[in-house]
Amino acid sequence: MTTITPQRLSSLFKPRSVALVGAANKSQFSALVYHNLLQFGFGEHVHLVNRRGAETHGRPTVTSCQEIGAPVDVAFMMVPQAGTLEALSDAAAAGIRNAVVLSSGYGEAGEAGRAAQAELVAHARSLDMVLLGPNMLGFANFVDRIPVTAIPKLPQEHGPVALLSQSGASSSAMLDFASMVGVGMSYMVTLGNEAMISAGHVLDYLVDDEHTKAVAVFMETIRDPGTFRHAARRAAEAGKAIVVLKAGSSELSARTAAAHTGALVGDDATIDAVFKDLGIIRVDSIEDMLITAGAAAALGRLERPGIGVVSISGGACDIIADRAEDLGAPLPALAPHTQQALAEIMPGYGTVQNPLDVTGAAVIDPAIFTRAVSAMSKDPSVGVVAVVNGLPWRPDEVPYMGQVYVNAIGEGMRQAATPCVYVNQILQPVTDVTRASMQAGGVPFTIPGLRQTVVALRNVGWWSETTRAMSGAKPTPGEHLPVPAASAREGAWSEDAARRLLADAGIPVVPAVLARSADEAAKAAADLGGKVALKVCSPQILHKSDIGGVRLGVSGADVRTAYEALVAAAETVDGAELEGILVSPMRSGGIELLVGVVRDPQWGPMLAVALGGVFVEVLKDSALTPLPVTAARARRLLTGLRAAAVLDGVRGGAPADLDAIAAVVARVGDLALALGDDLESLEINPLRVDGSAVEALDAVVTWRSA
Amino acid sequence: MTTITPQRLSSLFKPRSVALVGAANKSQFSALVYHNLLQFGFGEHVHLVNRRGAETHGRPTVTSCQEIGAPVDVAFMMVPQAGTLEALSDAAAAGIRNAVVLSSGYGEAGEAGRAAQAELVAHARSLDMVLLGPNMLGFANFVDRIPVTAIPKLPQEHGPVALLSQSGASSSAMLDFASMVGVGMSYMVTLGNEAMISAGHVLDYLVDDEHTKAVAVFMETIRDPGTFRHAARRAAEAGKAIVVLKAGSSELSARTAAAHTGALVGDDATIDAVFKDLGIIRVDSIEDMLITAGAAAALGRLERPGIGVVSISGGACDIIADRAEDLGAPLPALAPHTQQALAEIMPGYGTVQNPLDVTGAAVIDPAIFTRAVSAMSKDPSVGVVAVVNGLPWRPDEVPYMGQVYVNAIGEGMRQAATPCVYVNQILQPVTDVTRASMQAGGVPFTIPGLRQTVVALRNVGWWSETTRAMSGAKPTPGEHLPVPAASAREGAWSEDAARRLLADAGIPVVPAVLARSADEAAKAAADLGGKVALKVCSPQILHKSDIGGVRLGVSGADVRTAYEALVAAAETVDGAELEGILVSPMRSGGIELLVGVVRDPQWGPMLAVALGGVFVEVLKDSALTPLPVTAARARRLLTGLRAAAVLDGVRGGAPADLDAIAAVVARVGDLALALGDDLESLEINPLRVDGSAVEALDAVVTWRSA
Repeated sequence: MTTITPQRLSSLFKPRSVALVGAANKSQFSALVYHNLLQFGFGEHVHLVNRRGAETHGRPTVTSCQEIGAPVDVAFMMVPQAGTLEALSDAAAAGIRNAVVLSSGYGEAGEAGRAAQAELVAHARSLDMVLLGPNMLGFANFVDRIPVTAIPKLPQEHGPVALLSQSGASSSAMLDFASMVGVGMSYMVTLGNEAMISAGHVLDYLVDDEHTKAVAVFMETIRDPGTFRHAARRAAEAGKAIVVLKAGSSELSARTAAAHTGALVGDDATIDAVFKDLGIIRVDSIEDMLITAGAAAALGRLERPGIGVVSISGGACDIIADRAEDLGAPLPALAPHTQQALAEIMPGYGTVQNPLDVTGAAVIDPAIFTRAVSAMSKDPSVGVVAVVNGLPWRPDEVPYMGQVYVNAIGEGMRQAATPCVYVNQILQPVTDVTRASMQAGGVPFTIPGLRQTVVALRNVGWWSETTRAMSGAKPTPGEHLPVPAASAREGAWSEDAARRLLADAGIPVVPAVLARSADEAAKAAADLGGKVALKVCSPQILHKSDIGGVRLGVSGADVRTAYEALVAAAETVDGAELEGILVSPMRSGGIELLVGVVRDPQWGPMLAVALGGVFVEVLKDSALTPLPVTAARARRLLTGLRAAAVLDGVRGGAPADLDAIAAVVARVGDLALALGDDLESLEINPLRVDGSAVEALDAVVTWRSA
Repeated sequence: MTTITPQRLSSLFKPRSVALVGAANKSQFSALVYHNLLQFGFGEHVHLVNRRGAETHGRPTVTSCQEIGAPVDVAFMMVPQAGTLEALSDAAAAGIRNAVVLSSGYGEAGEAGRAAQAELVAHARSLDMVLLGPNMLGFANFVDRIPVTAIPKLPQEHGPVALLSQSGASSSAMLDFASMVGVGMSYMVTLGNEAMISAGHVLDYLVDDEHTKAVAVFMETIRDPGTFRHAARRAAEAGKAIVVLKAGSSELSARTAAAHTGALVGDDATIDAVFKDLGIIRVDSIEDMLITAGAAAALGRLERPGIGVVSISGGACDIIADRAEDLGAPLPALAPHTQQALAEIMPGYGTVQNPLDVTGAAVIDPAIFTRAVSAMSKDPSVGVVAVVNGLPWRPDEVPYMGQVYVNAIGEGMRQAATPCVYVNQILQPVTDVTRASMQAGGVPFTIPGLRQTVVALRNVGWWSETTRAMSGAKPTPGEHLPVPAASAREGAWSEDAARRLLADAGIPVVPAVLARSADEAAKAAADLGGKVALKVCSPQILHKSDIGGVRLGVSGADVRTAYEALVAAAETVDGAELEGILVSPMRSGGIELLVGVVRDPQWGPMLAVALGGVFVEVLKDSALTPLPVTAARARRLLTGLRAAAVLDGVRGGAPADLDAIAAVVARVGDLALALGDDLESLEINPLRVDGSAVEALDAVVTWRSA
């Protein structure tokens, strides 16, 4: 079977020659792809294949690939679905190992389409061919100037960002925007149905491509999670940012996307959690996707996420401060020595802070810009400096009145200790006029628009920190934890069994005695002292309250009565084996959390942590992560909850010991990993927290064999 | 004293001639304003005033306004601060009634600046002059082509949107963006310090201007709330949208803006509430401000807020659906007859829904676009149709390959029953090339970018509904409610007095007896039956719990003991007059709300409603509105709370009767209004709700004289 490796994809994405199979004058696709290849100077490496051998696009054709008589790396298939299998055989017979299949009517087109796609893949495999598509518009390698695509209006310059898209129809608009804002492209790949080559495979290829520094991805579904995850981890290690616009966050689009793609769209919260875990930046517009990818490629990994802002407009300072707060971008307060340095630069009436308004004084003395940028970049909390000022873009702006300021800012950027961005107040094009002005001033990089800048720099800062941490400390796997014998891993477990599993793994659980008689229950209650809780314990009764299987705050003689009542209640449940009645001390006060692990069909075990009671019920306030989870990550999940302030203590309650909770949460994750694929779910509800006392009060464990 | 009316501002904004006072070759401001006036063909109505009479900008000058010898409407003052008073006197002596003052160093520049500004205003008033500024860059009347401003690169075409800005430095960028996305301007006014003419005055003028259909405002502070509110109400009535980018939502920018402007920035939640009440659209970027204003001007008030989407790209459909959900834009499900009509138009494999992906079939048969747009516009829930497809903007896109689709869509728009918008997938310029394509296709209006479209159409729909409701049912004023004598309105009131005030206004309060002896307390408890609450009742003890002045769940003989203990507790408070001990029945279960009215220094009485307990403490979950508040509005405030689901009933609790609560909340607002300016605050905490039972359990009333 063909293994799709980066090396294997090299002959697809860097072909020496291309056959256009199904080339025809009246086909718009044919005309477009041929025009592109010609325009990019690849015309002499193109072979036209037309079944009838008719002259096409003014050139002679051959009737089959086998007639070409020269080595060809890629067959670009524009033949109708019905002829595709035969065309593949022909291409393989001609020694072509890669096919790009445009036709639709496969996986996206119902039952029959899915069957056709399976047949297509099986046939390609049998021929040892690798297949991009079907149902797409091709790809372009801009670095080597090989545009094997029917998308019009391709950018002529290349750059450091690759674009992957599951939507052919939107790719053209995306390329337009990238080109408009000066984000150069290394590759553009439309993915189509990903019958063989998935987004993950292309990502993996791009990690090894020296020209690609960041990847923008528009996707509706992740079809091959394992490959995608592997490639994303490699990208993180290589310091290449992945920026994804993932459609399907709304119920409406999730339903539609599932219909389009014939694939699982995936639960959006799970996707979010997986992306966070992998250091993948998620955006919500085409514009932010390309601007963020461009910024990540230009700036690289930042030393620290703090953004220092220097601006000619006080209004722009305020807009940036507002959006930074809304969007969670860090604008650090300046260190005393930075403040002092800026105070010496700024006129008396200016306010020294971040964002810094250099005021009209910089209009009179542009060197204020230079000095302010340089001083800001040396602040110990600042990882990138954003300088707000104008840039020209229209031909009628030449010569540019404000060039002296561009020059002064460029000089400041040259002196700066961090990467810098030149920011325009509005989203406007980056044209040759803009580039000429930047080049004259020595300005390396610009982002147009204040909101766009805040989003992009927040994203790049977050990515820098997250991916650096990923390549650092590896989380502890759970293999050292004791696990039950494989034979025991089936069905649902009783609370007692679940308790013991947790306790053996070092997770604190409330004391309990499994009483098998009223006498034992009474003795347990007496030993524990005070009031107790009694609960039926049976693997068949997971929702104990529903059958009246719980008694709270019982003491003295009532313990026996409660015991008997619970046994009677359990007997009403058909087929329930009663292991006994659990007797535990009553707890009061503190905060209740939920910690659970469930298995996502695409992404494996996912751990959720939530605040109990109204918070999870009313606010759906929970945080999710794939495993493993370190204690540090668990702590961030807790502090990221919307109602996290509850953990600081409310109404006189003690603040919760976040480290203690985080350690328990991480241990739960480790245990779930140690239990492996047999585990269906593990839930502690509630996990009671009172200051530094953390304790599981109840737990449910179920196994996949159930 | 000069009253600033729209009529009065007419001579300022439509001057017959302008004097540039302080004109000088070496002044950049002078060169810019003169260049603008010349370029717009107003040169012959310009008089240059230079103290030394030196030839300036190649023209002869006069040394004072009085030398001009012809009627002049506006003096554009570029003289330094020190010379401004004298220049004003000179202008007044020449019969000039309007001054535009550029100089800074006034209200924004500390104590001395504020004094100088007060002197400036007093002087202008004494001369019966009206003054725009100081600390600004002028204004432009684009309709009559009179650009009295030092801002460069003005748009040459005029249009339906006026721009007001407190930031001179950002106005240029804002005009650039408007021009770039094809939003035409009627006026641009930089407001500066608003020493005399405030944003509200200019708004009021623009409401009467027939060329202005919508107003975009960038502001950091609202200096004259009364005028602003009055003008905003008139704008709502006139169907002219006001779209505000108000800086200062973050703590950082609020502090900075206060420093810049020397004025109150205002509490951001209050501003939000006031804007919502006035039907003012609030946005968070320059781009959204101008695009939304352009859309409101082009589309006018929509019949209904539902957005119907027709798109060539499935990916774009999904992005729109996702952003619509995030941003709260309504994409209504289609009525059966619309679905049927679309099913007849669409190819078999397409999915009939909103957003509608017309699929590649429309590429082959563009008439599908025409029919789909028309059918979508006839859906009873759709108020505007957004059609996603490409448009050209660069000269190299002529002739435009996709013109056939533009034509087909334009034809659909002509047949449509609602306003329509042509949407580009990305934010790109609207140039002459774009306009030519639109004109050829009969497309009236375009918005570039998917996110921008969702934001703008959501905003216009919200504004349409809100301002229509404003001109409909007037809320009931509270004047019919009984109010206490003026003499009683002072200090803080005891709970008993507050209770009676509420009860007299028809607001339900928990039963209570004011006991003045242990016997009376015991009798009251016996009469009420069950357990009771006892509370000290004194105007000097508002925080009863803090001094141990509350006993809950008391019954039997304990009532007397509790009574005595509370009396003793009250005696520990110096100067507290004890009116008695309130005895009420204990309540349990239900939900606790807070309802309060406080007086905002800028905007008058504001009503807040919140869910009690952890929701308000931890989540700061409250809703705010100016008064009066109708029951319908009160209901929307309640359902808009983040934890509103609590009102639906949690953990088996009965759902709260929203209408009953809303009626009480509205009544509280009416009462506060009836109490008038003497009221400092009125708070019911808690307002207990159990199903349809709504009852104030405690209340505090304070008066301004306190």
